[in-house]
Amino acid sequence: MKVSVIKDILSANDEIALQNRQLLDKHGICVMNVMASPGGGKTSLILRTIDALRDRVRIAVVEGDIASTVDADRVAKKSVPVVQINTGGQCHLDAPMLRLALAKLPLADLDLVMIENVGNLICPVDFKLGENLNVMIASAPEGDDKPYKYPGIFIAVDAVVINKIDLLPYLRFDMPAFRKLILGMNPDVHIFEVSCETGQGTEDWAEWVAQQIQTKLK
Amino acid sequence: MKVSVIKDILSANDEIALQNRQLLDKHGICVMNVMASPGGGKTSLILRTIDALRDRVRIAVVEGDIASTVDADRVAKKSVPVVQINTGGQCHLDAPMLRLALAKLPLADLDLVMIENVGNLICPVDFKLGENLNVMIASAPEGDDKPYKYPGIFIAVDAVVINKIDLLPYLRFDMPAFRKLILGMNPDVHIFEVSCETGQGTEDWAEWVAQQIQTKLK
Repeated sequence: MKVSVIKDILSANDEIALQNRQLLDKHGICVMNVMASPGGGKTSLILRTIDALRDRVRIAVVEGDIASTVDADRVAKKSVPVVQINTGGQCHLDAPMLRLALAKLPLADLDLVMIENVGNLICPVDFKLGENLNVMIASAPEGDDKPYKYPGIFIAVDAVVINKIDLLPYLRFDMPAFRKLILGMNPDVHIFEVSCETGQGTEDWAEWVAQQIQTKLK
Repeated sequence: MKVSVIKDILSANDEIALQNRQLLDKHGICVMNVMASPGGGKTSLILRTIDALRDRVRIAVVEGDIASTVDADRVAKKSVPVVQINTGGQCHLDAPMLRLALAKLPLADLDLVMIENVGNLICPVDFKLGENLNVMIASAPEGDDKPYKYPGIFIAVDAVVINKIDLLPYLRFDMPAFRKLILGMNPDVHIFEVSCETGQGTEDWAEWVAQQIQTKLK
């Protein structure tokens, strides 16, 4: 008697993440999930990316926070479509939340959706949303030992953006050691050094994002 | 017919937290749960507190991290008892983890146990451990808008320690507005401004901890 084997069972979240992805692929939209600690600079990086790419890329933003619309209000001033998700206490976004947000965006008129996840280096990593790219921001003032303590996120991402490098003269932060540690854990990762405060390095970062949109979707 | 009403059902975690607390009370030990974002300065504050109080308070430390013993190694150099908990991915400590750690500490010879929770502003708030005091560190480089986005932790704590004030000259950070916002959410909270890097303000903080030990336990 033949035994039926069921493979690749998706969780409820993964199933909806796949549906999100199919919907986004249909519209030729690249989706980037931006993760970081609280205050790492997620909103600031998103704003810099909008400034750098808005003339050639049609952008929307999904803002995830436990509470408030502080970040969405900042994005809305850039006159790009933005949806705020308040998780009401939940420590990460999930695929059903993104599905609700996508329903409020003009998908036919977009090339890039940037998702600002909840400020947390741990939980967001475990929940697929339907994204093409996973990116984390490592804020220099947090110190150069974070990959030891939060290995999961450093391994999971396509790019690490080291932010607040304008503060490096006032910090004990060993950049070569930090880069080496990250690359040891994730040899294919792209690393950028930026200051969202001064703008330093953000053009190179935005160019990489533009290339990813081209490579993955066209 | 009389209806039986069962009140105050404790969750499994809360039940064990209560047992932890009873054990600690029996030994006259004050327990402080220290929470912060990744890189906020939890270990540095614990080290400063040890330096300030070690001549008059018998201290032990429980270190919580997803992975590594980096922080416990730093504490061990101070020659105080320290236990490292590796949560293996879990985003917070819970009461059963603390119970395991307490079993490895010389409880008869302690006045204060400082617990360094996992770096996360969200999940640790929901899990009682058996602590007397809840404390959070707000790192100045994270910005002055964090209470809007992570209200739960600012409301839950007995003290907010604003760390990295040595960097204030290089940041946009409105200290009076930040203090006012926190006090609006939590009028009884104690607020300290410190630099664990330079030591500024850490003596005042440690004095408050010493007072709490006296007030709550003697």
